[in-house]
Amino acid sequence: QSPDILDDISHRRFNPLRNSWILVSPHRTKRPWQGAQEEPSKVTLPEYDEKCYLCPRNQRAAGDSNPDYESTYVFVNDYSAVKEDQPDYVPTAADGDKSALLLRAEGVKGKCFVICFHPSHNLTLADMTTSQITSIIKTWTLIYRSHLPPTSPYFTFLPPTIGISNPTHQYRYMQIFENKGAAMGCSNPHPHGQVWTESALPEEPALEITAHKHHRHKYSSCLLCDYLDVELRATGTPRTVFENAHFLALVPYWATWPFEILLLPKRCVSSLPELTPEEVESFAQAMSQVTIRYDNLFKTQFPYSMGIHQAPLVKEQGEEIHLHVHFYPPLLRSATVRKFLVGYEMLGEPQRDITAEQAARRLRELDGEVVYRKQL
Amino acid sequence: QSPDILDDISHRRFNPLRNSWILVSPHRTKRPWQGAQEEPSKVTLPEYDEKCYLCPRNQRAAGDSNPDYESTYVFVNDYSAVKEDQPDYVPTAADGDKSALLLRAEGVKGKCFVICFHPSHNLTLADMTTSQITSIIKTWTLIYRSHLPPTSPYFTFLPPTIGISNPTHQYRYMQIFENKGAAMGCSNPHPHGQVWTESALPEEPALEITAHKHHRHKYSSCLLCDYLDVELRATGTPRTVFENAHFLALVPYWATWPFEILLLPKRCVSSLPELTPEEVESFAQAMSQVTIRYDNLFKTQFPYSMGIHQAPLVKEQGEEIHLHVHFYPPLLRSATVRKFLVGYEMLGEPQRDITAEQAARRLRELDGEVVYRKQL
Ligand SMILES: O=P(O)(O)O[C@H]1O[C@H](CO)[C@@H](O)[C@H](O)[C@H]1O
Ligand SMILES: O=P(O)(O)O[C@H]1O[C@H](CO)[C@@H](O)[C@H](O)[C@H]1O
Repeated sequence: QSPDILDDISHRRFNPLRNSWILVSPHRTKRPWQGAQEEPSKVTLPEYDEKCYLCPRNQRAAGDSNPDYESTYVFVNDYSAVKEDQPDYVPTAADGDKSALLLRAEGVKGKCFVICFHPSHNLTLADMTTSQITSIIKTWTLIYRSHLPPTSPYFTFLPPTIGISNPTHQYRYMQIFENKGAAMGCSNPHPHGQVWTESALPEEPALEITAHKHHRHKYSSCLLCDYLDVELRATGTPRTVFENAHFLALVPYWATWPFEILLLPKRCVSSLPELTPEEVESFAQAMSQVTIRYDNLFKTQFPYSMGIHQAPLVKEQGEEIHLHVHFYPPLLRSATVRKFLVGYEMLGEPQRDITAEQAARRLRELDGEVVYRKQL
Repeated sequence: QSPDILDDISHRRFNPLRNSWILVSPHRTKRPWQGAQEEPSKVTLPEYDEKCYLCPRNQRAAGDSNPDYESTYVFVNDYSAVKEDQPDYVPTAADGDKSALLLRAEGVKGKCFVICFHPSHNLTLADMTTSQITSIIKTWTLIYRSHLPPTSPYFTFLPPTIGISNPTHQYRYMQIFENKGAAMGCSNPHPHGQVWTESALPEEPALEITAHKHHRHKYSSCLLCDYLDVELRATGTPRTVFENAHFLALVPYWATWPFEILLLPKRCVSSLPELTPEEVESFAQAMSQVTIRYDNLFKTQFPYSMGIHQAPLVKEQGEEIHLHVHFYPPLLRSATVRKFLVGYEMLGEPQRDITAEQAARRLRELDGEVVYRKQL
């Protein structure tokens, strides 16, 4: 049987990180599209927008003003999804009661931050230099370090310049992410990301930590180290998009989104502070390569949600994870036609229309150095 | 502690059907919205559209013509996501090999159908009479019955009028669903749904079946029967949207989408053919009530994905499920502002901005008999 058989037949692939399956229908991109089209993203933003609440010196929705910041700037989200100070929740139903079992809730405390990636309103990661991206990675690392338990060897206090004050609560987990583009619910094009830190370990990292634990238990090795090894040895490295000294960007075998990317360090590190300066440099270069290739794919500001999975702030026994970044971009065929994960995907299971290998090939063949806007 | 405390604090709720958690941030709807707005749906469609590939007598993309059908009409999807005739997949890696473990795939065969709900191009479920909706339920039931193993007491052959021929393969599972509205990836407003039947049991029903199994094992009762019981006894039935003799529509305690609804029969039935004629009638009325309330909420054609979870066609030992319908609608604040499940939701866990009780109250207070369009 030809190894390319999966390019032609409907099949499922297993995601060992989430312990779940996805359906792959490689023949399906042939169907005509009469459905919704995204607005092509506008590329002619000003460098400074007086109405933007993220630009330097401007006033934010809740009244505070931004300083005249020069690289990254962090503030507490004016509309945080989790609250820091609130009463504890005490379930009312008795324990033996069925309603205690079926109406289960628990209080969650936490704090949300916004990180402006750069003072310029009209830049994206794909427009930034490696050293500008390095500043962002350093800011993420500082916020993470400052929220670790003070007994951790990586704990540090925040410098006063960062924009937020040192934490007053010890939280369990920190999720760093970026929503880019209106298609991904982003309400402001100014380059920025978010950090949500909270008292609970959310579902997705919990699934991945469990998967790492089971894999370690069975094979005495790290799940993502083993996966890296398999990918780096695969004949023709069919899922690799970009590789440098310390990082590998690939379309994972089990990708759900059409051009999904998994970016991971080759060394088994579990959190940002463990990265060496050279690894941070490699990481920044890989982030630049991925985001430039994305924009070059459909010559558009490519929308995505991106985020980092790493060790919980407070680690419980046996909790292990190989740090990695997920890029979940929705576009499928062009700057305006996206993949919808609806209907069957919500009620059955996620379904994709091109194989991971087909997506990787296209991304690999693109220019990863210069974004199309600069070539015009 | 007041039982309303969950209206004010950030918390998580547990979904016992999927064995997963969601984050609830009731205070969060206050944030201003500067992001994407949906196109308000056009309500001035013609009754017949000569360019629509679902209207009676018209030609479809792949060349076939529709008959001059009068109620429902079924045909094989011209761009099915699963193929019926394809080679089997034989994994190439050896069993002990790490790549066999981490690059896991399996072939999936299947067939996809499209069901036109009505010949009129400009109707939706909310515009239809109970008897028109009953015809749709009967068509779903017939397709399900004809795909059961011939040894099943509910097995039947398809009538020649239905539009498709009797199955030639025995499949494991059948997913019936509808995507409505461009926001839900629907590429044609003609009222229609889909049926995907396939050789694998997809993730979502598999999770629910597992949950039913564990619940039965622990409490010797049906998970959704117990949940029904809890909801029907809850003081003030705060999550109920609509109830009739045989069906209950509610915003489940663990709802993810802002106005998500779970519709379920009060009697423990596991598949459509088990419903009595009175239950089918109740079901149709409840479908009408739900879709009319949805449209009346923001005075718009309310987008959603809807689907039925019921017993697999081929049941394995101990596989049990209480039939139910999920409605997953994205709108949050108005006809044009939706909830995006992106960033934190993809990387952390699903997050909602209003409580299930707040959503249920709004839906409950709306007119469920007459859609706003008919009142104008
Ligand atoms: O089959 P349709 O309506 O063309 O397509 C729609 O529904 C399918 C099943 O939920 C999805 O896979 C597609 O992404 C969506 O656009
Ligand atoms: O916080 P924002 O950017 O206003 O909002 C966006 O990201 C959040 C976190 O992923 C989501 O909960 C919102 O649905 C989305 O619109």
